[in-house]
Amino acid sequence: MHSLPSQAIRPFSHSPSLPLPSPSSHASRCLRFLPIFLKPKSRSEFLAFPPKSPPLIVRGCSSFSVKSPSELRTSSNPDDKLRSLRQLFSKPGVGIDAYILPSQDAHQSEFIAECYMRRAYISGFTGSAGTAVVTKDKAALWTDGRYFLQAEKQLSSSWILMRAGNFGVPITSEWLNDVLAPGGRVGIDPQFLFSADAAEELREAIAKKNHELVFIYDINLVDEIWKESRPKPPNNLIRVHDLKYAGLDVASKLSSLRSELVQAGSSALVVSMLDEIAWLLNLRGSDIPHSPVMYAYLIVEIDKAKLFVDNSKVTPDVMEHLKSAGIELKPYDAILSEVKSLAAQGARLWLDRSSLNAAIVNTYTAACERQYKHIEKTNKTPKNDGLNGWSSAPAGVYKASPISWAKAIKNAAELEGMRNCHLRDAAALAQFWAWMEEEIDKGVKLTEVEVADKLLEFRSRQSGFMDTSFDTISGSGANGAIIHYKPEPDNCSIVDRNKLFLLDSGAQYVDGTTDITRTVHFGEPKAWEKECFTRVLQGHIALDQAVFPENTPGFVLDAFARSYLWKIGLDYRHGTGHGVGAALNVHEGPQSISFRYGNMTPLQKGMIVSNEPGYYEDHTFGIRIENLIVVKEVNTPIRFGGIDYLGFEKITFVPIQAKLIDLSLLSAEEITWLNDYHSQVWEKVSPLLDGSALQWLQNNTQPLVMQ
Amino acid sequence: MHSLPSQAIRPFSHSPSLPLPSPSSHASRCLRFLPIFLKPKSRSEFLAFPPKSPPLIVRGCSSFSVKSPSELRTSSNPDDKLRSLRQLFSKPGVGIDAYILPSQDAHQSEFIAECYMRRAYISGFTGSAGTAVVTKDKAALWTDGRYFLQAEKQLSSSWILMRAGNFGVPITSEWLNDVLAPGGRVGIDPQFLFSADAAEELREAIAKKNHELVFIYDINLVDEIWKESRPKPPNNLIRVHDLKYAGLDVASKLSSLRSELVQAGSSALVVSMLDEIAWLLNLRGSDIPHSPVMYAYLIVEIDKAKLFVDNSKVTPDVMEHLKSAGIELKPYDAILSEVKSLAAQGARLWLDRSSLNAAIVNTYTAACERQYKHIEKTNKTPKNDGLNGWSSAPAGVYKASPISWAKAIKNAAELEGMRNCHLRDAAALAQFWAWMEEEIDKGVKLTEVEVADKLLEFRSRQSGFMDTSFDTISGSGANGAIIHYKPEPDNCSIVDRNKLFLLDSGAQYVDGTTDITRTVHFGEPKAWEKECFTRVLQGHIALDQAVFPENTPGFVLDAFARSYLWKIGLDYRHGTGHGVGAALNVHEGPQSISFRYGNMTPLQKGMIVSNEPGYYEDHTFGIRIENLIVVKEVNTPIRFGGIDYLGFEKITFVPIQAKLIDLSLLSAEEITWLNDYHSQVWEKVSPLLDGSALQWLQNNTQPLVMQ
Repeated sequence: MHSLPSQAIRPFSHSPSLPLPSPSSHASRCLRFLPIFLKPKSRSEFLAFPPKSPPLIVRGCSSFSVKSPSELRTSSNPDDKLRSLRQLFSKPGVGIDAYILPSQDAHQSEFIAECYMRRAYISGFTGSAGTAVVTKDKAALWTDGRYFLQAEKQLSSSWILMRAGNFGVPITSEWLNDVLAPGGRVGIDPQFLFSADAAEELREAIAKKNHELVFIYDINLVDEIWKESRPKPPNNLIRVHDLKYAGLDVASKLSSLRSELVQAGSSALVVSMLDEIAWLLNLRGSDIPHSPVMYAYLIVEIDKAKLFVDNSKVTPDVMEHLKSAGIELKPYDAILSEVKSLAAQGARLWLDRSSLNAAIVNTYTAACERQYKHIEKTNKTPKNDGLNGWSSAPAGVYKASPISWAKAIKNAAELEGMRNCHLRDAAALAQFWAWMEEEIDKGVKLTEVEVADKLLEFRSRQSGFMDTSFDTISGSGANGAIIHYKPEPDNCSIVDRNKLFLLDSGAQYVDGTTDITRTVHFGEPKAWEKECFTRVLQGHIALDQAVFPENTPGFVLDAFARSYLWKIGLDYRHGTGHGVGAALNVHEGPQSISFRYGNMTPLQKGMIVSNEPGYYEDHTFGIRIENLIVVKEVNTPIRFGGIDYLGFEKITFVPIQAKLIDLSLLSAEEITWLNDYHSQVWEKVSPLLDGSALQWLQNNTQPLVMQ
Repeated sequence: MHSLPSQAIRPFSHSPSLPLPSPSSHASRCLRFLPIFLKPKSRSEFLAFPPKSPPLIVRGCSSFSVKSPSELRTSSNPDDKLRSLRQLFSKPGVGIDAYILPSQDAHQSEFIAECYMRRAYISGFTGSAGTAVVTKDKAALWTDGRYFLQAEKQLSSSWILMRAGNFGVPITSEWLNDVLAPGGRVGIDPQFLFSADAAEELREAIAKKNHELVFIYDINLVDEIWKESRPKPPNNLIRVHDLKYAGLDVASKLSSLRSELVQAGSSALVVSMLDEIAWLLNLRGSDIPHSPVMYAYLIVEIDKAKLFVDNSKVTPDVMEHLKSAGIELKPYDAILSEVKSLAAQGARLWLDRSSLNAAIVNTYTAACERQYKHIEKTNKTPKNDGLNGWSSAPAGVYKASPISWAKAIKNAAELEGMRNCHLRDAAALAQFWAWMEEEIDKGVKLTEVEVADKLLEFRSRQSGFMDTSFDTISGSGANGAIIHYKPEPDNCSIVDRNKLFLLDSGAQYVDGTTDITRTVHFGEPKAWEKECFTRVLQGHIALDQAVFPENTPGFVLDAFARSYLWKIGLDYRHGTGHGVGAALNVHEGPQSISFRYGNMTPLQKGMIVSNEPGYYEDHTFGIRIENLIVVKEVNTPIRFGGIDYLGFEKITFVPIQAKLIDLSLLSAEEITWLNDYHSQVWEKVSPLLDGSALQWLQNNTQPLVMQ
């Protein structure tokens, strides 16, 4: 340990010696820290290779399993699959000692199409988050606390379950370094390792034992054995997202984007995030449950743009829409060859390494290298056309995608759509709660799944309804404490009228996306349940009412939502707020409100975030109160520093159950907040209701009086 | 801008190309971010080379000027000094085009002895924070907003005043890159550039224009011209800090420290921070105003320790004390030769690059390099004795000093001393306020300086009083809005009974250190003044009452102290809390409570921080309310996550003026807090008082009743 490799002393007197981390590892640690927070939507990204130091955190919202896990699991004996996979290890052109299978599709999507669920196919484990690693004689699956029970059930004895985040459980690279003989070859499909940054991190980690990371481009080893039963890639029709909801036409969006490209000295942007493509092109799809997006890549150049998508999804309308915006169609699979060809032409691609898959980034950098060597050999000076950053010696611009930011700051039409669909959603919820209370009062036994189905029924009657925005979390009693809980028809509880019931759900409408959680009690809540609920509510109110200077990152506000819980030693292990798309993904970045303090993205006027503090008591109950809120300017009497002060506007209008509130804990201001909120709920939602739902709304929006 | 330097493409397909920052610059930016927060005590550290992106922030507490600025300024014409300095630029062995003079001594002290005030001597500007840069034909001085007026007055027309933090004002390196012809040589005295990290950053920054950073070891160019009139280095006697106040003997402290050395694979720690040396050795000095420390360096090896200090300061008592702890004496000036000799012996030195001066770090790395080359030449394999990390091929361990952390977490005796001295300090303050109110009521005209002097008089009557802990900030009306304000006898205001009066002061006692701010009004405060005061108070209470999980960094709590101000668009441009030493420096790290979010140091049980929100209205008034608080465990009913929940214990007991509170803004809990506090003040401090001071205390601790 104390001997010194010769490269540790560098020919500069000021250079750091061991054990100061080398600049590159330092840089990589800086990079590693950020992407986790910049992409709150792709939770699985950090769960697959969980960071070691911070505690493993599970978001408070939806998780999901595939709709029909049986399909993925019954096609053959799981041990046969492992045997077939290992046989491919020694195939010519492969030659590996281990193969890694993360959960992701090629676009780092949170929800993915079934044909890309290779990890679920090979392992039998169908939870949304997990990484499978298969060596010649071992198979291990990493997942997080949300899925330990499910994984125990679903994995065969050939698999080692790695409880990520538990003390002493190695991360994937550590395990590989431990079980492989030095100098091993670790294979991945570079389109399906979660990102270029993550691949790079893995490469560095396993290099410590002289293992090599091998990109296997031509075949995905699981697809090779899945063959006959593998579902086809989805090819649902794309639709145009109406300008009245989008607010800005594609030409305007492209024009702003191109200004940014020029300014960054880049000649083209490669986009793989499906919601970014949908937003930029005012298109929507239905390839993936819950997310109104289509599988595609996009390359925007200064003077043209190419959409890489399966032709059969493109209707004449969409074709016309694309044509008028000057967008060319290319086959989905042509993305890598296009990247290669752009590099050969000297394009300076803007690549977001945290979201683009390793295949794209590596294809580009390898092509650049070849290009550069060629220039060196022919001794030509790199030429610069001085116009839009093209140069015959290409080099990437590695920055966060500019679309992520533009998409997060909603324009007036997007906000209008979000406000409108939230009222219809609130009407559906009022109908639902009125129905549910009635049924429970009548003594009807309702399962958690029946309840979720009924909610879907009410929602689907609302105009513009398209889909749920994630799998409904409908949890009675102890199930409410399982943050990821998704009831299954054959294995769920009856809603117990004497226990807390947590319902977290959302919908995709043509004009917007909703995400709401309410916790209720149908009988007599205990004093402790009321105290916990009230403290969660106080945190919710504190965040809702926060006023803060512009340029404040979201994490600064996170403690406001926790402080009332902290006072009595309570806390919750998830962030307080995530971004929400406008008729797009229910989880989006770059902003967040979290106790993970690395995301420095300031909250900006027009951003939408959730406000969802909670408290969970294992095996007993779960509480969460979630509204969506929009960042707005606040008209303060003074503006110290000559800057704007910001606050929030609520867009969710569903009553908060008064029965669960311990009024003695609330301040006069908090009671006023609640009464104001309920009076707004009544005013905005009652016009959409009649009958028992209207009556329910009236009952549940009565003002409370301070004790 | 778009052409591509050849080194931008590196021979690895995954390596980032331009304009992704190179790993080393990325690492350096990560490093740059941290030291600012890790050393809140040395504010001048970040003011000299202010970071560009975050706004320049001025702490809320003391600043200082030299006691007799005239001495530094009148010795000769300022332009003569510049001329003499420039003549030295071309001296053999120098050969430079620019010379940089920061404010620091060789130990990054906040307060420094007069003989090290070289920047003040050469420029005539005597403020505590500033950097002078002299080229062959220009001279520029950077200082921050606290000192713009003073610098304008004090600088001759030969100097350009650089208003650091103002829009468009370059930082030092940018200015050098602008005014020097490419390939310039920029000289510094490496013992007096603020730290090894800072030197490295400067080197990188000016390398962009091919300038070279030149370390001039043998002479300090200012000393050369200051010669005749330069004050002698202080050589006041050192005293032993009684074990009853220190709590731990030197042997125990050394033993813990040596365990840490072994664990880190290091064979010796080099310490230059004066408070760290004083703390570790249970010694106190008086070389520097306000800080009970002595100029010295310390090297702790596994089996011995050497103190580098002027012999004449060492009394027989201290000699005995050091001897019994196995500490050898060496001359102060022998530090560099000792470092060189340790490197030659193969010692692995633990060096805190953020606090050690560049001379020490560079002496070591250069010696290591020589050593390594020698080994290579003689083809000997580096040997490792396997015992305590010594190796014949030395390499540094570059980490934050372990003493900083140990010192910050106070032991029981240190806490006891802090609590005790705060009561005596409170008694002095009660006497002072009683006197001041009486005088003002009698219509006596008191200047801000007379008031500060009277406070010193009351304090100096308390047992164990040694010194003020910083220059008293005594500001009436508009002067209270100048965060750095230090009244000067010939140029200060009469305290106006119709305006707010802000008094921030502290003392060094034999058993502890105090730092307290109160804002009062002697007449009838305006409604707006009361609203602002009340909101500052609400923030103060919110932080005081905060409960939070262990491992929470201080910045998480910062927003609690601001939220009531934010609601109406107010804020303050300084942190909320800094660490305080126990009978040591009034500002210490590593913890802080600040809106600068880079300091991840968790607040730990036993740490002391200030709680000092404020609000400042330019040209009108300033408000600050400051107590010191100790991090303590809170006995919460639940401990979610099985961890400790922490809170604060107040140790400052001086009434908060009720007249300034708008009771209608306070909640019942806040009024209870205030009444509880005042009842504790009465209980703890009244036994130390009699006469009018006792009466004053009684009047000012009466319970308030909610309106």
